[in-house]
Amino acid sequence: MNAPDLQTVFIDLQHRSYHLAIRGSLFDNPLSYAELPAATSALIVTNATVGPLYAKRLQTALQDKYAKIYVVTLPDGEEFKTWQTLNLIFDALLANACDRKTVLFALGGGVVGDMTGFAAASYMRGVPFVQVPTTLLAQVDSSVGGKTGINHALGKNMIGAFYQPLKVVCDLGTLQTLPQRELSAGLAEVIKYGPIADIDFLTWVEDHIEALMAREPAALAHAVKCSCEIKAWVVAQDERDTGLRAILNFGHTFGHAIEAGLGYGQWLHGEAVGVGMVMAAHLSQRLGLIDAALVRRLTLLIQKAGLRVTGPLLSNSDNAGRYLELMRVDKKADGGDIRFVVLDGLASASVRGAPDALVREVIDLCCAEPQV
Amino acid sequence: MNAPDLQTVFIDLQHRSYHLAIRGSLFDNPLSYAELPAATSALIVTNATVGPLYAKRLQTALQDKYAKIYVVTLPDGEEFKTWQTLNLIFDALLANACDRKTVLFALGGGVVGDMTGFAAASYMRGVPFVQVPTTLLAQVDSSVGGKTGINHALGKNMIGAFYQPLKVVCDLGTLQTLPQRELSAGLAEVIKYGPIADIDFLTWVEDHIEALMAREPAALAHAVKCSCEIKAWVVAQDERDTGLRAILNFGHTFGHAIEAGLGYGQWLHGEAVGVGMVMAAHLSQRLGLIDAALVRRLTLLIQKAGLRVTGPLLSNSDNAGRYLELMRVDKKADGGDIRFVVLDGLASASVRGAPDALVREVIDLCCAEPQV
Repeated sequence: MNAPDLQTVFIDLQHRSYHLAIRGSLFDNPLSYAELPAATSALIVTNATVGPLYAKRLQTALQDKYAKIYVVTLPDGEEFKTWQTLNLIFDALLANACDRKTVLFALGGGVVGDMTGFAAASYMRGVPFVQVPTTLLAQVDSSVGGKTGINHALGKNMIGAFYQPLKVVCDLGTLQTLPQRELSAGLAEVIKYGPIADIDFLTWVEDHIEALMAREPAALAHAVKCSCEIKAWVVAQDERDTGLRAILNFGHTFGHAIEAGLGYGQWLHGEAVGVGMVMAAHLSQRLGLIDAALVRRLTLLIQKAGLRVTGPLLSNSDNAGRYLELMRVDKKADGGDIRFVVLDGLASASVRGAPDALVREVIDLCCAEPQV
Repeated sequence: MNAPDLQTVFIDLQHRSYHLAIRGSLFDNPLSYAELPAATSALIVTNATVGPLYAKRLQTALQDKYAKIYVVTLPDGEEFKTWQTLNLIFDALLANACDRKTVLFALGGGVVGDMTGFAAASYMRGVPFVQVPTTLLAQVDSSVGGKTGINHALGKNMIGAFYQPLKVVCDLGTLQTLPQRELSAGLAEVIKYGPIADIDFLTWVEDHIEALMAREPAALAHAVKCSCEIKAWVVAQDERDTGLRAILNFGHTFGHAIEAGLGYGQWLHGEAVGVGMVMAAHLSQRLGLIDAALVRRLTLLIQKAGLRVTGPLLSNSDNAGRYLELMRVDKKADGGDIRFVVLDGLASASVRGAPDALVREVIDLCCAEPQV
């Protein structure tokens, strides 16, 4: 397969608009950063896994642009998405007397992106930042939309800000070194966009799931571009997440319960969302909104992406009750009522409540046996 | 003197606009909160000094509006303006399953307001909040402009957000219980507005400084209203603090060095700003921008407000050098260059650098003997 051309996606958010660039051999090319505003210093935020692979190359690409380039390396993993880790970024900024023009570069996956974005939003009440996502999940999800934040012991992503980057550089080359488990987790979010918004894209993913699993560059390029376009279209209509944007959380209500119930970092976010989508599809069917064929179609695709389609037991006594308890403290809950993103047709989703009894049925079903 | 009528100031920031209400007997009146949006729950954030005086009365005033009203009491003092204290607010929000509509009420001085505002900006990426400032400093300064944040060991207000409240309720009655030292500290910010923007207001403050020190309600009402109007006029032109707004930091560059050098909480913010204004006025004179008469006029007024006009020694070896070092890490510094707000006429200010030698002269002068 040929190396794909440079693709770009424009994220249209008035004066906070920005571009994504998508291609191989991008992140270590100085031209990728040519249009960024001048500054004296830059701080590359990365983690202990990605840093050794790529930090030096990014530093070299930036060396003609900034007089001083600092690097801070965070521990790797969702369990480190905490204030203590965030403070390592502030420590680095202040110890190096970084000012309001200092540009932060998030080099890593979603956790690095979320924390760097929140650090950029908060340092001196806002400094510029650039996303250089190195995982599929980060490229198709957290790179668009400006959601940044950290976890609290009592809930995921509970503390954060809406804050947009200056630019996002999605280098497809970095996906070649990704562990298979993380590739699959990223595909969960790719799969998500079809059923909620674009049935042609769902069909395309079904037709190319083997190519995606084999990391064929052209297939990855198309998947990243379409995913970001769909997300950008949704976010442009609802930047502050007060309405439509909620459909992007298809599979996430159940998924967050799995992540929280197991302890963050046990399952990858995308793995939890994979099962969460299966659960949400079953719930949609039981609410009479879609037929069993779409549930089967989605479940099969999730399985082909190397993902689990049955949920973990979170309690030996009342497993469904534990899921419900965890979902009630999710930040999408409204005064204790759980809000579910359900499919209500082909490529259409909406948000609604559901009777506890029905939700329990779905959890009991999906935590027992594979559904395919 | 008669009890003044209700005064209001409109803070014009497009869709983030809000009103200040100024009068006695306001904060415990349910009508003060009538126009706020409905929500299931509210969280009153206060401190160990103000809470015992007023929290119960605010709770009673809100009881018909919110089904659940929680109170979290923070330790009192600038030295507690830290992440650890901020986290007490997040703990309270999450332990009580507060959602995205929960309204936070900041009941206290500037520290409570800054921390509650940052908690509101960050909890679930933004929940509504109301300021109920109980100190003169908070009423005339932090209640307008949306600057929120916490301190870092290496710098004051280094971590925060721009985030506007839904409303500000300035109850003049709460100023009657304020310690004299805090009244004086608040007057420092009141005094600030005249020389930078409104010479008539400077004259009015000079004519009414005894009435203000005696806490006459009509004088306090006028001082709070005019201060907030001037600040609102500046902020409306430069909400994100990229230009004009810097003039509001008259006296603050030197003042922050004093606070940081002594350790936060030793001098009150307003006390440090008082001396900082004396230093900035001398610097302006030495730069040939104003005459000695204005320096004397300002110094005298600051002294009449019960404030010190000489700075503390921050180092026994190189005192001026220590001031310079501290000012260089201030977040207003630009690539290590210190930016000073100077007076360049009657009721006119601008921002500029100054030669170290000149700054040293001013510090040496102002850390020795009273200048009046």
